[in-house]
Amino acid sequence: MTVIKVFSKPKLKNAIMIEGLPGVGNIGRVAAGYLVEEMKAKKFADLYSKWFFPFVMLHKNYRIHLLKNEFYYVKAKKKGQRDLVLLVGDCQSLSPQGHYEVAEKILDFVEKIGVKEIITIGGLATGEMESKKKVIGAVTDDNILKKYKKYKIDFEAGEKVGYIVGAVGLLLGLWKQRDKDGICLLGQTTGFPIVTDPKAAENVLDILTKILSIKIDMKKLDKKVKEMEYFIKKVETLQKRALMEITKGTEEKGEKGEEQTRYIG
Amino acid sequence: MTVIKVFSKPKLKNAIMIEGLPGVGNIGRVAAGYLVEEMKAKKFADLYSKWFFPFVMLHKNYRIHLLKNEFYYVKAKKKGQRDLVLLVGDCQSLSPQGHYEVAEKILDFVEKIGVKEIITIGGLATGEMESKKKVIGAVTDDNILKKYKKYKIDFEAGEKVGYIVGAVGLLLGLWKQRDKDGICLLGQTTGFPIVTDPKAAENVLDILTKILSIKIDMKKLDKKVKEMEYFIKKVETLQKRALMEITKGTEEKGEKGEEQTRYIG
Amino acid sequence: MTVIKVFSKPKLKNAIMIEGLPGVGNIGRVAAGYLVEEMKAKKFADLYSKWFFPFVMLHKNYRIHLLKNEFYYVKAKKKGQRDLVLLVGDCQSLSPQGHYEVAEKILDFVEKIGVKEIITIGGLATGEMESKKKVIGAVTDDNILKKYKKYKIDFEAGEKVGYIVGAVGLLLGLWKQRDKDGICLLGQTTGFPIVTDPKAAENVLDILTKILSIKIDMKKLDKKVKEMEYFIKKVETLQKRALMEITKGTEEKGEKGEEQTRYIG
Amino acid sequence: MTVIKVFSKPKLKNAIMIEGLPGVGNIGRVAAGYLVEEMKAKKFADLYSKWFFPFVMLHKNYRIHLLKNEFYYVKAKKKGQRDLVLLVGDCQSLSPQGHYEVAEKILDFVEKIGVKEIITIGGLATGEMESKKKVIGAVTDDNILKKYKKYKIDFEAGEKVGYIVGAVGLLLGLWKQRDKDGICLLGQTTGFPIVTDPKAAENVLDILTKILSIKIDMKKLDKKVKEMEYFIKKVETLQKRALMEITKGTEEKGEKGEEQTRYIG
Repeated sequence: MTVIKVFSKPKLKNAIMIEGLPGVGNIGRVAAGYLVEEMKAKKFADLYSKWFFPFVMLHKNYRIHLLKNEFYYVKAKKKGQRDLVLLVGDCQSLSPQGHYEVAEKILDFVEKIGVKEIITIGGLATGEMESKKKVIGAVTDDNILKKYKKYKIDFEAGEKVGYIVGAVGLLLGLWKQRDKDGICLLGQTTGFPIVTDPKAAENVLDILTKILSIKIDMKKLDKKVKEMEYFIKKVETLQKRALMEITKGTEEKGEKGEEQTRYIG
Repeated sequence: MTVIKVFSKPKLKNAIMIEGLPGVGNIGRVAAGYLVEEMKAKKFADLYSKWFFPFVMLHKNYRIHLLKNEFYYVKAKKKGQRDLVLLVGDCQSLSPQGHYEVAEKILDFVEKIGVKEIITIGGLATGEMESKKKVIGAVTDDNILKKYKKYKIDFEAGEKVGYIVGAVGLLLGLWKQRDKDGICLLGQTTGFPIVTDPKAAENVLDILTKILSIKIDMKKLDKKVKEMEYFIKKVETLQKRALMEITKGTEEKGEKGEEQTRYIG
Repeated sequence: MTVIKVFSKPKLKNAIMIEGLPGVGNIGRVAAGYLVEEMKAKKFADLYSKWFFPFVMLHKNYRIHLLKNEFYYVKAKKKGQRDLVLLVGDCQSLSPQGHYEVAEKILDFVEKIGVKEIITIGGLATGEMESKKKVIGAVTDDNILKKYKKYKIDFEAGEKVGYIVGAVGLLLGLWKQRDKDGICLLGQTTGFPIVTDPKAAENVLDILTKILSIKIDMKKLDKKVKEMEYFIKKVETLQKRALMEITKGTEEKGEKGEEQTRYIG
Repeated sequence: MTVIKVFSKPKLKNAIMIEGLPGVGNIGRVAAGYLVEEMKAKKFADLYSKWFFPFVMLHKNYRIHLLKNEFYYVKAKKKGQRDLVLLVGDCQSLSPQGHYEVAEKILDFVEKIGVKEIITIGGLATGEMESKKKVIGAVTDDNILKKYKKYKIDFEAGEKVGYIVGAVGLLLGLWKQRDKDGICLLGQTTGFPIVTDPKAAENVLDILTKILSIKIDMKKLDKKVKEMEYFIKKVETLQKRALMEITKGTEEKGEKGEEQTRYIG
């Protein structure tokens, strides 16, 4: 029960997918979401999954929608550009095996519609107030490293990073299993407190736009981030509350007063 | 292993399903349950699921039954009325993915037997002693909003509500995925302490009966609520106890004395 | 991956299954296990499941075996007796959905080999030092109540009992779904501290032997209980330890010293 | 979604599989890993599973790979030797049912390619500073005991051991279900603090090389252990951190400051 509802089938050639789901500093979500808006990308599919939270969001005060991941596309317009698929969404999977199942579903789908390479975007929370925030890279294989060496990506930070959790890492890992290429771009962020970090997202976008040979007006980023952040924080808060409610039965051991939070069902 | 046992197949035309499973303030359970009794609805199917608690209830002191959700129906009797399916039950799913699976099973079933629209009923715990308790609405789409605008439903509270957890929200969200219409009615309730709120259920019933063009004698509601509440509270208490027992193994870390609660197995 | 390994297919006629898996006071385990020994029942099948703990037990110091449930049978020898299937074992399922899946597997199997009725045995922990310990009964339907009314079974305790968790309840509940008959016998036990209660098991055996028209020498019960208890307690302790280890990763948050328990892997 | 990616199909005759996945004292991982290196075993397959942690590791600072288990082989070179399959890897399953599913997948695979017997290697954490560290054995059946009696394996420790958790035990238990033979070798280790214990691994290797009629230069063990340990500890630390992040949503209840650890996503 992970379902992709397809609205239209874009004809893509040698496409590249940019993934930006919610995560550390929401850097991927912001960067990919900004691309969607600035490039006027067209939505062509929604993904729903039993591995997401069992709740619906309210949109425009009265309209409900299931939690979902969304697929957008933009066709190449100039030489040097490539057809793009953009993957954004409300949330990632709740459980470890759900992460694998949703990631496989996504890859099955985009492989079929012509995606040849993927770029996943995430954040690296350093916990430190570093003055210079780098963009750290990790790749599926040595040959792809060569291709991306010319950009200002730090490929020496692996030791410091160690591992990459969730969709950002798993999509790339499972994509590699299919003998496909990909790169992950991690924007360094303080990560404390956990808030959306537009600066780190901009750092990633700077490199990403060069890779994609596109030009994006960065001026609206701050404004858009504020709009997005409002929604993202809402989802986060709601997920935490919802999770508390779902697990309440198991956690609750007679303590009173905990249940005074506002909730619905 | 979510199974629907069908006793009889009612012939329904353009039917509307009213969902009222246990939840906040048990508003859905009370409202739908009262409709079942007052309209002398006929039971035609039971749903069992491995996603429910692994225990049986005792009925009449000596007869056991599995936890279940029940389907009732009432045929339209007058012009302006519609055939009704009423969904009530002992419990909702234990786990997030179970919520999705049970909801899909329910929708598959009712879609086949002629249900065209659904109304889910829940509660909105405000945590405040509001004097006026409204009924808040959320819909699958704009066209259904128009249809329900004439009733005293607050469609402006989305911001405050944010999300709807469990069957109330998920049935509607997954129904929308099938390009079907539906509405959710949330009765405002203090939600503290968590008890059945017959007044909030009555507020929902006031609107619901108008929507359905039916007349229901509300006088017996208080009495019926007391009867239902006894059973509902029992299930709640039992679920909590049972959950503690099930998770005991994982939680228990040498603390003694915790195990003195009455239990069976 | 719940598998029943069948060694031999007994020809059974109108058989009755007695279930006695570990549980409250280990009353079912002791009662059914004693029947297996005293009646020299023959083992004909083993059930293994991914829903059990992922570990093996050591038998005779050096031989390993997977956790399992075991099926034994005894053919009727005299008029008034019935062919018996006895279900005993090391453990029950770890998770709620596992409980449902294992129970369904068991019922599929025994229904095929000729079981017509089941008797599940469990304990009712009262938490009180009652002087008189009753045997409490719960049935699938009114017609089976009539049949068992003549035995000294308390069918009035439902209110007090409320619900029956795990295999004892679920086997009966799912059996009822197949329109089959069954009864559950719960031996009252103090339940504190949780130890094997041979007296409660004897109380159940007194009634059970009458139901089955068999005679069992009760003299060896105490001795056998001591032998069984040693093994049962070992499994319990091991399961708790193992569970702690399995969940250690999630629970562990920097506390040191907790890991000093003896363990293997 | 437990997948074995096969690079080449070795022709094996009457092969024996040595399992050494991470576990207590990492004794199996070290012993089997050292055999892989010293015997210049060839890798022929990788196993990936949704039951592993949903993250990727970074290799050489910039190359990602999914968590995996790896299959190597060495052909017999002299009389008295047997074809070997060596199973090593990054991790074991996260969940109980995952343990069963991954183990079954492994056994299905190795049975098909000619493995007739398995030796699993683990550690027994005694919690005591024993001066003499034994190697404890457990077998699938009496006939295999006879075969291994001549080696310095303690087959009398079952009582003390009780049970064997995870792949070490489960592979053997499920293998026995297939009417196949196998033995488990547990190196005694203090187990506190939990670190890689090269001495215990050497004790197991001493016996294992005799069983396999091979000669291994033990001099490089300490050096290799240091290399391996660095990686193993990293994975352990990462898994714990990752697990905390994954479960953070459920655990987190308003405590601040906990989230200051360095993480990515």
